[in-house]
Amino acid sequence: MRSRMRKLEGHYAEAYTPGSPIVGLGVARVLESNNPKFNKGDLLWGLTRWEEYSVIADPETRFKIHNTDVPLSYYTGILGMPGMTAYAGFFEICSPKKGERVFISAASGAVGQLVGQFAKAFGCYVVGSAGTKEKVDLLKNKFGFDEAFNYKEEQDLNAALKRYFPDGIDIYFENVGGKMLDAVLLNMRVHGRIAVCGLISQYNLEQHEGIHNLFCLITKRIKMEGFLVFDYYHLYPKFLDMVLPQIKEGKIAYVEDIAEGLENAPSALIGLFSGRNVGKQVVVVARE
Amino acid sequence: MRSRMRKLEGHYAEAYTPGSPIVGLGVARVLESNNPKFNKGDLLWGLTRWEEYSVIADPETRFKIHNTDVPLSYYTGILGMPGMTAYAGFFEICSPKKGERVFISAASGAVGQLVGQFAKAFGCYVVGSAGTKEKVDLLKNKFGFDEAFNYKEEQDLNAALKRYFPDGIDIYFENVGGKMLDAVLLNMRVHGRIAVCGLISQYNLEQHEGIHNLFCLITKRIKMEGFLVFDYYHLYPKFLDMVLPQIKEGKIAYVEDIAEGLENAPSALIGLFSGRNVGKQVVVVARE
Repeated sequence: MRSRMRKLEGHYAEAYTPGSPIVGLGVARVLESNNPKFNKGDLLWGLTRWEEYSVIADPETRFKIHNTDVPLSYYTGILGMPGMTAYAGFFEICSPKKGERVFISAASGAVGQLVGQFAKAFGCYVVGSAGTKEKVDLLKNKFGFDEAFNYKEEQDLNAALKRYFPDGIDIYFENVGGKMLDAVLLNMRVHGRIAVCGLISQYNLEQHEGIHNLFCLITKRIKMEGFLVFDYYHLYPKFLDMVLPQIKEGKIAYVEDIAEGLENAPSALIGLFSGRNVGKQVVVVARE
Repeated sequence: MRSRMRKLEGHYAEAYTPGSPIVGLGVARVLESNNPKFNKGDLLWGLTRWEEYSVIADPETRFKIHNTDVPLSYYTGILGMPGMTAYAGFFEICSPKKGERVFISAASGAVGQLVGQFAKAFGCYVVGSAGTKEKVDLLKNKFGFDEAFNYKEEQDLNAALKRYFPDGIDIYFENVGGKMLDAVLLNMRVHGRIAVCGLISQYNLEQHEGIHNLFCLITKRIKMEGFLVFDYYHLYPKFLDMVLPQIKEGKIAYVEDIAEGLENAPSALIGLFSGRNVGKQVVVVARE
């Protein structure tokens, strides 16, 4: 959403037309349909707009909701785009091996909290960073991370990473960019992998901060790969088969930050960039 | 060689001890051996030192030379580490497909000239950058690149790349770093690949220039991977089988810049950082 609020060159998404509703991912019920794939009454998740009623011309990036014995808001998160992002980013981009050391930034966010739990369940050592004590506690006590730290309290990110990864990092799940990325590069292990999911620390800057330690890509033979969830939606049924039972059996925790009412959506969006939300930010437009 | 002349943290190589001979790759004849793998009179290439006679304790990164109907200096280049670097970097890291658009920086250097010729022979569209008119002419007229340009004459690298790649770059073979990398990132195609072989524009800087356009890794789903030739030496016999016939049949061109005498080695090394050399820089210590 944020990235569409500027001029875009060679971007996967188009810039917003001022005056038109903002586009985002949501859950909706079909009130009327001319499309044989979607019937009146169906629930679906996917691209919607910041409005109570939408006319949707192109049904391509919408998925029908079949399992309704979980909160519907989960389809904006753990069972939707962020869940698939965590799944594809960790398993497809990072090629994890049991016992590897995984670091996740913005780790209590919609994607980070899931990557960490997937990695722990897979048998990795998992450390996350976040920006408040409350979030760090969540990481350690609710999401089961091995360690977590508040990056805002660290004078020297390089030293912080050395404390939690004395032997280096095999996998970095990158959500923030900037100084954290530069510090991580210094602490990567040989043949490490970096999945570049987001660079949220940079999106509000006129020019992105420079990254100075890319020489580590060579000395440590690191693979750094950006990805977008769109390329992996064919794995969605496989993902649901894995994650739905985990949710129902209480084996995976999931934290949402609920804002009530469309009128609170702008401040909820703005809050993401100062880390005001705790967990996946959801805006309730209507309840069943 | 250059990178060992500073304090190194987490580097694959060790820093030099001042007063000891500099280590580099060379060709040598065995004068005496206690190692059953190397006999008196054998020719080999690999790690040697800047000296006329060396005692070599660890024979691991040395390869016996069997084909002597090519200039022996070729084993410091096209048939040695730079050749293997070009081969592994292009075929193993870049996963090329016929018809893809390939850009190579420092393209007339030891590695670049070979990557370009491998890519052309493989069926790619190939453009290279270099820093003098003489080098640009070499790229176009001797190495058979489709296009080449002098990066020092371009006000705007982004515009230069758009001129040669109106539809974008699939593969970037990175030898220089800095502003060129930032410009390339803006011009990569979706699912492009960047093989990070070297960052020569940065090695003499106190701190490397910042790279600001890494967001392109996400928007274009780019894989950027650093590599070192050490990891690929098991492919050396396969590589020789490919390249030796090409050399003998004149299907591949190879340009060396020869400095005579060990006393000229320091200035030859220094010249690399201003691009004074044309082609692979070789220092002749002794002739047969």
